[in-house]
Amino acid sequence: MTLPTFADVRDAAARIAPYALVTPVLRSDRIDALVGAAVVFKCENLQRGGAFKFRGATNAVWSLGDEDAARGVVTHSSGNHGNALAMAARTRGITAHVVVPEGAVKTKVDAIVAAGATVHRCAPTTAAREAKAAELMASTGATLVHPYADPRVMAGQGTLVPELLRQAPGIDTILFPVGGGGLASGCSIAAHGIDPAIVLFGAEPEGADDAARSLEADERVGPFTAHTICDGLRTLIGEPNFHVLREQAVTVLRVSDVEVVSAMRLLWSELRIVVEPSSATVLAALLRYPERVNGRRVGAVLTGGNVDLDDLPW
Amino acid sequence: MTLPTFADVRDAAARIAPYALVTPVLRSDRIDALVGAAVVFKCENLQRGGAFKFRGATNAVWSLGDEDAARGVVTHSSGNHGNALAMAARTRGITAHVVVPEGAVKTKVDAIVAAGATVHRCAPTTAAREAKAAELMASTGATLVHPYADPRVMAGQGTLVPELLRQAPGIDTILFPVGGGGLASGCSIAAHGIDPAIVLFGAEPEGADDAARSLEADERVGPFTAHTICDGLRTLIGEPNFHVLREQAVTVLRVSDVEVVSAMRLLWSELRIVVEPSSATVLAALLRYPERVNGRRVGAVLTGGNVDLDDLPW
Repeated sequence: MTLPTFADVRDAAARIAPYALVTPVLRSDRIDALVGAAVVFKCENLQRGGAFKFRGATNAVWSLGDEDAARGVVTHSSGNHGNALAMAARTRGITAHVVVPEGAVKTKVDAIVAAGATVHRCAPTTAAREAKAAELMASTGATLVHPYADPRVMAGQGTLVPELLRQAPGIDTILFPVGGGGLASGCSIAAHGIDPAIVLFGAEPEGADDAARSLEADERVGPFTAHTICDGLRTLIGEPNFHVLREQAVTVLRVSDVEVVSAMRLLWSELRIVVEPSSATVLAALLRYPERVNGRRVGAVLTGGNVDLDDLPW
Repeated sequence: MTLPTFADVRDAAARIAPYALVTPVLRSDRIDALVGAAVVFKCENLQRGGAFKFRGATNAVWSLGDEDAARGVVTHSSGNHGNALAMAARTRGITAHVVVPEGAVKTKVDAIVAAGATVHRCAPTTAAREAKAAELMASTGATLVHPYADPRVMAGQGTLVPELLRQAPGIDTILFPVGGGGLASGCSIAAHGIDPAIVLFGAEPEGADDAARSLEADERVGPFTAHTICDGLRTLIGEPNFHVLREQAVTVLRVSDVEVVSAMRLLWSELRIVVEPSSATVLAALLRYPERVNGRRVGAVLTGGNVDLDDLPW
């Protein structure tokens, strides 16, 4: 796979501008005091669909030529990416096929249907999902849009970085959650495309620290079983994504689920926003490793806000 | 009382700029489609302290001469205004005395204490609150900052309007909740100072429709007992505030608590923000009276987000 460049991120920014929101940034004196740094939160939880995923999905959908686009797009993510791809496909008036395993969260599936996608059920295994997606590609000619190991998706996710640097000039450190690594790799390429001196940190739950272990071992670890409430970060980091994180010298910081829940509460009490556990990893990391960012100007990416308000983890 | 002018709003905007946030605006295709208008929400729920009240309190605190300021400020609001005044006083390093009735919500009182105010308890009656505040003014020389019937407070609340019009040019209609009327009067003066053709709507719960009844009767009604979950809107509209609403030709629209709760949910599902019931009145009004705004460009003010996530009204 050809990795995206900063030029691809700039092209993506122009491509998605008519559809994606310029999400706001928020900050708090109290959080700054607790961390010992000037922290600006980039609120992708307020992006369309409630997550940054809309950026990458929209860039992928609008990167297609007209003929390919007419045959639709397909993905096997039942989470935020599936919903984002459904919404992005609708902006172009094309079909999105979303493969959903039996047992997927009903509210998420409902949202995907509401966004206009065609949902295809399959058994709840990776093999069954991939087989179903391959079958759909063969039968419809639809293009696969992978949730993170896709250069168009990475470039799209990276578009939040130039936005953030315009909204909060002088940022010298950027911190983002690491799951499959689409956001992490796109943001790394974008940040160093603008200023190679920007320091990059990832945040990962202790129970899904595959990126941290991969960087320590200098090779991507194999499949593992995740144990964390951060449902967006249970994925094994993608191969191309791992290479970008290594090349761009990203340091991944581990946080516990208890720290994550505490950070979620602090984001609500200080900023009046409700974010997913996956998002709160960044604040948890700042509070656990303040010496890493002491006196710096930090941009921290809050990736999504798709939680069930009636079932908060506290 | 001398009512504030648009020049006072502009002065207030300059005065509070170092302290108050420029709150973001959010919108949703789905809400636009449901209402039949282009609706932009001004998110004062993301203001410091979680409510627009910080604007008025900060303007009042920084309007004082140094000698008066040194003697502190006092209020008898245990809600968002008490907290906002405590935070505003802290920005100037002066004392805020907040009179709190027995039985006030503990989390709100804790927030006021955390913001650095001196809390004074009294019996839970209007007479006891006012007597206690008067006693404090006499003993300390502190200046009373009334939550809404104060021209400095009104002018401060009005500062959100020029901000909104910069963020979303072309707005021809502004809609805000009406409680005591500080926000409503400040925003009306500001809006018509910028463009006298802007159409103004207020939103009020059916169980606290004193402003609607006052405007219909062409005189301010007397004290009443409120029956609504919109805790920020149970107050009788202030006398000067009523005069401003009448002068500025504000039309007040009534909504039910059921409609308010439904609008709260829709704001969460569409915009991923949690707002107070009082705030959700504006969306409830748009959904109940779409013919009032059909085809218009509406700015709707979400006033606050200080709700208990563990006790949502659904």
